[in-house]
Amino acid sequence: MKKHIVLLPGDGIGPEVTKAAKQVLEAIAGRYQHTFTFESHDIGGAAVDQHGTPLPEDTVEACNKADAVFLGAVGGPKWDQLPGHLRPEKGLLGIRKQLGLFANLRPVQAFQQLLHASPLKSEVVAGSDLLIVRELTGGLYFGEPRERRDNGQSVVDTLAYQRSEIERIVEKAFQSAQVRRKHLTSVDKANVLESSRMWREVVEEKKQAYPDVEVEHMLVDAAAMKLVTNPSSFDVIVTENMFGDILSDEASVLTGSLGMLPSASVREDGVGLFEPVHGSAPDIAGQNKANPLASILSVAMMLKHSFGMQEEADTVEAAVHEVLHAGFHTADLDITQGIEVGGSQMAAKVIEQ
Amino acid sequence: MKKHIVLLPGDGIGPEVTKAAKQVLEAIAGRYQHTFTFESHDIGGAAVDQHGTPLPEDTVEACNKADAVFLGAVGGPKWDQLPGHLRPEKGLLGIRKQLGLFANLRPVQAFQQLLHASPLKSEVVAGSDLLIVRELTGGLYFGEPRERRDNGQSVVDTLAYQRSEIERIVEKAFQSAQVRRKHLTSVDKANVLESSRMWREVVEEKKQAYPDVEVEHMLVDAAAMKLVTNPSSFDVIVTENMFGDILSDEASVLTGSLGMLPSASVREDGVGLFEPVHGSAPDIAGQNKANPLASILSVAMMLKHSFGMQEEADTVEAAVHEVLHAGFHTADLDITQGIEVGGSQMAAKVIEQ
Ligand SMILES: CC(C)[C@H](C(=O)O)[C@@H](O)C(=O)O
Ligand SMILES: CC(C)[C@H](C(=O)O)[C@@H](O)C(=O)O
Repeated sequence: MKKHIVLLPGDGIGPEVTKAAKQVLEAIAGRYQHTFTFESHDIGGAAVDQHGTPLPEDTVEACNKADAVFLGAVGGPKWDQLPGHLRPEKGLLGIRKQLGLFANLRPVQAFQQLLHASPLKSEVVAGSDLLIVRELTGGLYFGEPRERRDNGQSVVDTLAYQRSEIERIVEKAFQSAQVRRKHLTSVDKANVLESSRMWREVVEEKKQAYPDVEVEHMLVDAAAMKLVTNPSSFDVIVTENMFGDILSDEASVLTGSLGMLPSASVREDGVGLFEPVHGSAPDIAGQNKANPLASILSVAMMLKHSFGMQEEADTVEAAVHEVLHAGFHTADLDITQGIEVGGSQMAAKVIEQ
Repeated sequence: MKKHIVLLPGDGIGPEVTKAAKQVLEAIAGRYQHTFTFESHDIGGAAVDQHGTPLPEDTVEACNKADAVFLGAVGGPKWDQLPGHLRPEKGLLGIRKQLGLFANLRPVQAFQQLLHASPLKSEVVAGSDLLIVRELTGGLYFGEPRERRDNGQSVVDTLAYQRSEIERIVEKAFQSAQVRRKHLTSVDKANVLESSRMWREVVEEKKQAYPDVEVEHMLVDAAAMKLVTNPSSFDVIVTENMFGDILSDEASVLTGSLGMLPSASVREDGVGLFEPVHGSAPDIAGQNKANPLASILSVAMMLKHSFGMQEEADTVEAAVHEVLHAGFHTADLDITQGIEVGGSQMAAKVIEQ
């Protein structure tokens, strides 16, 4: 197959981990006789420096023509004091919205070798393997009006949804649950929000079409508790944009493997943006210390979700597991009796496998 | 001093724990020569059954004349299928709003004897002692419009604040920090929400008046992570109503002592509503199993925040610590080599102390 991939290295350690992602994609292309072509564009702080905007026009145009996009990381103290529209995150929010990437998929898995690094007791977190499906282009992030009023004496933001926006993310979640352990937790605040009551109705309607999936509704406050007390009880969680932002970050620290977590933001036709969950870590940028595994696992998600290459994706995931199993790790992971290597060596090990 | 207290026992274990709270108040009145008078009213499911509404008029009237209100718990499966306006939680939201209780104070403290019950590793959670100051009568909970639109094809909720509402909660938080460890974390989502940007401005303005308090701003997703990875790094957290709902429930499970957590909802003049954080636990209602300590610690908050009785409050807290230290516990707390007692015995032990 021929696929065209846009790389958005971004800021901090973004370029290093993007390089690792590209190498893995090239290795897969070689082994499975695919043709992957690449082009790189600026986003975030790097784009502010080069073009005066965090999301240049030609970056958007290139992404619009791509089969998939890989993003390294955006942001850093250098750009933190800029006004809102020039903040690196605007680039990220903008590209999600412009590409219509409504479904953010955030898997969290406990790796046996890393449990000692978890803040949770091993018996609480062991065996956890969950997927948060976060709505990404609606809700409190984009609703209008969002403005000052009464001469600056009051302010509003708006949580708005089209019913159809809720339907498509709920369907995506049901489909994800079908290929996993067939359990879906829909998270809302139906005892307070009208939008949550519509959300609950849509889930109740849609579940007719997925009789093999068991559904439960949970309030967002209860979900925030249960993620900590019993993370292994979850399979797939589906929720609104802001709730998803909070819960997926909470979930990301449970297993002690933040440096390992991938994410995908996709739309119906499979086009997607893939990025590691970790940030741009400006303090270690350029020192070959960054752990490339989150990016490499994001590549596996790209192969699966955007290109339908299940076998290739499995190969990448298996390689990551074997390298960890053999005891190799970057400085952020502290594996007892392991062998510490630099970021580029880690990527090479995975490719070797 | 003379004080008039309204008791709202509510549902499930609410009446049992309210009884314990009243006994402790009576003991304090006796020892310190105060006159506390009491009257009981219905709220929640109990009020739906008796009066056809979760918040009867005369309950509101009585609360309006009280110096403080104690609430047991509301809700239960019996009322879960009722339409929105008859749900027991409506009683709780209504009384908060009607009394203007804009500041919800939720302390979370790690008790050495209970660390084994925490989902977190002891070394992560030990020493945690934080207070969440949640805005309680504004934000996403009450903003208008909140409605269906386009013939049911879309929906909105509104996150609205007056600048003055943000100012008073931020001031309350600074004052709370001043009598604690003088560190304030203001939590928002300023990279996305206009209301969060106003929130941040208000904090920056107000901090001039509290030069002894160190302030930091944190994004809500980062705060959700740090509560799990490093809870002992927080002192006071101040945040919007919905963020506060999520974070305070997340925080409540960190220390393994959910059955111990009190809460206070207060306004400027000190009038407040005090309630245990735990729910109505209908499964154990009426069996003398409910742990009364959260309610008793809520009484301590009432003495301090509504009546200005610092010494009396300290006496109650010290009694709770001593009873725990002596190894007494209810069925929900599992203290190694402890002595399990029923809820009423537990209350008696505290009063004895
Ligand atoms: C940078 C920020 C706007 C973004 C979000 O809130 O969506 C980030 O936290 C994320 O989750 O990808
Ligand atoms: C019952 C519910 C409406 C309430 C809230 O969300 O405020 C509860 O979760 C709380 O935190 O006291």
